[in-house]
Amino acid sequence: MTTELETGLPSIRQIQTLTRDGTEVELKLSTNDLLTGKIRWQDQYCLCIIDHYDQPTIVWRQAIVYLKPKA
Amino acid sequence: MTTELETGLPSIRQIQTLTRDGTEVELKLSTNDLLTGKIRWQDQYCLCIIDHYDQPTIVWRQAIVYLKPKA
Amino acid sequence: MTTELETGLPSIRQIQTLTRDGTEVELKLSTNDLLTGKIRWQDQYCLCIIDHYDQPTIVWRQAIVYLKPKA
Amino acid sequence: MTTELETGLPSIRQIQTLTRDGTEVELKLSTNDLLTGKIRWQDQYCLCIIDHYDQPTIVWRQAIVYLKPKA
Amino acid sequence: MTTELETGLPSIRQIQTLTRDGTEVELKLSTNDLLTGKIRWQDQYCLCIIDHYDQPTIVWRQAIVYLKPKA
Amino acid sequence: MTTELETGLPSIRQIQTLTRDGTEVELKLSTNDLLTGKIRWQDQYCLCIIDHYDQPTIVWRQAIVYLKPKA
Repeated sequence: MTTELETGLPSIRQIQTLTRDGTEVELKLSTNDLLTGKIRWQDQYCLCIIDHYDQPTIVWRQAIVYLKPKA
Repeated sequence: MTTELETGLPSIRQIQTLTRDGTEVELKLSTNDLLTGKIRWQDQYCLCIIDHYDQPTIVWRQAIVYLKPKA
Repeated sequence: MTTELETGLPSIRQIQTLTRDGTEVELKLSTNDLLTGKIRWQDQYCLCIIDHYDQPTIVWRQAIVYLKPKA
Repeated sequence: MTTELETGLPSIRQIQTLTRDGTEVELKLSTNDLLTGKIRWQDQYCLCIIDHYDQPTIVWRQAIVYLKPKA
Repeated sequence: MTTELETGLPSIRQIQTLTRDGTEVELKLSTNDLLTGKIRWQDQYCLCIIDHYDQPTIVWRQAIVYLKPKA
Repeated sequence: MTTELETGLPSIRQIQTLTRDGTEVELKLSTNDLLTGKIRWQDQYCLCIIDHYDQPTIVWRQAIVYLKPKA
């Protein structure tokens, strides 16, 4: 019994696109940390970011301040 | 199945107006960052801000402290 | 379809009174910012504060720490 | 149509007792501010604190870290 | 009409055990404060900690980062 | 009457896998603390981390910024 992601929302869809395209993103967190990597998956609570060494980091949505494609 | 934005609320409507008019806004974030740009869209979780180089930043509402038209 | 403000609650009513009376208030925010101005409107998510130059600032409730009439 | 405070909960009841007894309390806030005063009322979203000059401050629950009777 | 604590959850049960056993705990808070004491009660919103002078502090769950038995 | 963990979600499942495998993880918290240890259990509100001395720490999910397997 799993709540579905609201895939009609622009924010969810853009993260889906960034995931599918393997776009490198910057993620600013509430602690002021800035993570860089590719998004592997998202669910209601978290996003998973893969860094250059292919290491995963599970980031809680509640701690995300902003996300943008790396320039 | 998407929850609708409550477009009857002043805060949602004013952001709609600022988006449509392409007004430049300042967005103060919980990390003390101050973003400047135009609002491209809003949904329940996020606002998308476009900077002077036309780069998008997806900002989580949970991290927004205040928003005002740039003076 | 808009959720109504719970106007039976003291906090909502006192903000209504401060708004109607045009009382100058201080708003302490989670970033430690202190905003001063008059309240123009409130909804479920935000308060709008007007400063001395008649400029509006939309403040998210989630970021409000306290509010008091300016001494 | 107002949601009732859950007066069966210890936290709500103890704040009711402190309010009725006019006990002076210390309120530690997420910004590290420490407010001192008597509680005038509580609702679901806020507590109202009265300081020594009889000035009210409306404090959002979301910003409260702890509360204790002043030693 | 009071929402019950979900006593089937490990986190609720372990706090019940620590309360019953009078175990001294450390509570790290979002402001970086570290409280030490025994847990007197918990409800949905708060935990009550008693310090060495038998003074109670009502701590909001929203501000708790972690809790551990004092070493 | 206990709300079930949504075990269909990637974030819940990956934490289940890390728990079962006894993988050492790093947990970054909103206070900027970095905890290291093995996950003993998770529920809706908390994760329990066991350190090298076999001491448990109950961490509130609300305070988690990110989690990753220790490199």
